[in-house]
Amino acid sequence: MPYALYYWPTIQGRGEFVRLALEAAGADYVDVARGSAAEGLGMPALLQMLERDALARPPFAPPILRHGKLVIAQTAAILLYLGPRLGLVGKSEADWLWAHQIQLTIADMVDEVHDTHHPIATGLYYEDQKSEALKRAQAFRTERIPKFLAWFEAVLVANPKNQAHPAPPTHHPAVTTARSPHLIGARLSYVDLSLFQLVEGLRYAFPRATNRALQNAPRVAQLADAVAHHPRVAAYLQSPRRIPFNEQGIFRCYPELDG
Amino acid sequence: MPYALYYWPTIQGRGEFVRLALEAAGADYVDVARGSAAEGLGMPALLQMLERDALARPPFAPPILRHGKLVIAQTAAILLYLGPRLGLVGKSEADWLWAHQIQLTIADMVDEVHDTHHPIATGLYYEDQKSEALKRAQAFRTERIPKFLAWFEAVLVANPKNQAHPAPPTHHPAVTTARSPHLIGARLSYVDLSLFQLVEGLRYAFPRATNRALQNAPRVAQLADAVAHHPRVAAYLQSPRRIPFNEQGIFRCYPELDG
Repeated sequence: MPYALYYWPTIQGRGEFVRLALEAAGADYVDVARGSAAEGLGMPALLQMLERDALARPPFAPPILRHGKLVIAQTAAILLYLGPRLGLVGKSEADWLWAHQIQLTIADMVDEVHDTHHPIATGLYYEDQKSEALKRAQAFRTERIPKFLAWFEAVLVANPKNQAHPAPPTHHPAVTTARSPHLIGARLSYVDLSLFQLVEGLRYAFPRATNRALQNAPRVAQLADAVAHHPRVAAYLQSPRRIPFNEQGIFRCYPELDG
Repeated sequence: MPYALYYWPTIQGRGEFVRLALEAAGADYVDVARGSAAEGLGMPALLQMLERDALARPPFAPPILRHGKLVIAQTAAILLYLGPRLGLVGKSEADWLWAHQIQLTIADMVDEVHDTHHPIATGLYYEDQKSEALKRAQAFRTERIPKFLAWFEAVLVANPKNQAHPAPPTHHPAVTTARSPHLIGARLSYVDLSLFQLVEGLRYAFPRATNRALQNAPRVAQLADAVAHHPRVAAYLQSPRRIPFNEQGIFRCYPELDG
């Protein structure tokens, strides 16, 4: 039974964390809003899903996953559901709870990224809250990026499966997937994919601050690079299915916010 | 085996969502940081839990639940774990996924409440970001409170188990628990408790805006009042274990932010 992903068709946004899991697992899925309205897909299908009267359990906002009769919103809840089904998390309750905690912390950072360009109101344009955005982005660059990346690095260091690996050199020239660390255990999980996406987004939105912070988080950088070279992920990133970052999404390249 | 909750001892904060579930279920738990250092509890025990080198799976931030060897951070993940164990969620995967989605949406609103008084940086005092807070709070009052409450109301309306109940009158004088709606099915779940806490916090921080918005969300108001009268919840709210709201927590009474 194929998965149906409902998400805004022109941005990566939060939907991208779900897309990456589906793509890395080679899952059969339909990206509903990017399909054709003539085939019952496209924006009309997404908007219909958001009609609250239609469902006994109405979603708050996209991304939304439909699988058979089940409809799930909230990115982290979708990945909680997909993880074991796609083979992208360990089988024990302790493993999937740990993966979920990491995912929720990634989600917290994603929310903070959004607020760097919208610190006052989602309903206002960036230009109408730019002076506040400059202040918020400064705090985000100097306090929050280092704090979050230090925690992801600590998770990678503490993972017993990584402790045979020495820390990579700070300026790692070529990275091989074989020796890459993982956030959980010794295999790729959906949180590795999500951390890759977070780092990609940070590099797009705050290239200078992110590259500076990654010098203190070499395992995070190594993991992100390794995920980019995972065969199915690499194929996806080259495909037209990967929407480029843009200034309607969560990660926006406004050079003035990078200090 | 008792549960151990690790949270800042002088605020309700995010820990309160966990406390309410433990209290409503009559669970055996220790509120670690509020215990005595002489007995191995208190702030030293909380700070030790936050030492990253101590654990293979280090938590990012409190609240943290320890149950035997398992250590879980992130409020929504803790409730995901506790829900079935405390009898505070249905047994089917669909039920606990739906509960979790609602909880994550409550968590999103809680994050936005925090940012009304800290729109620029967590590391700055409120007084140092007050002009931005006034703007953010205005958008929160006029756009976000109505939007979130409308969704919770829609969830209550759509729950098939509530459809025998007529909508309560807008100014409901006395509410009986017996006819109260629930967010999921026909029984109390942890998301009912969390929605009560959210409404209590909003009433403390934004009394005028919240009471206005609740006039369009009568079932939300009815549910919050019914939870307050649940016997174990009512006993807890009267006890010294319930920390009063204060201006170090997430919900802060700054009258200027209520418009």
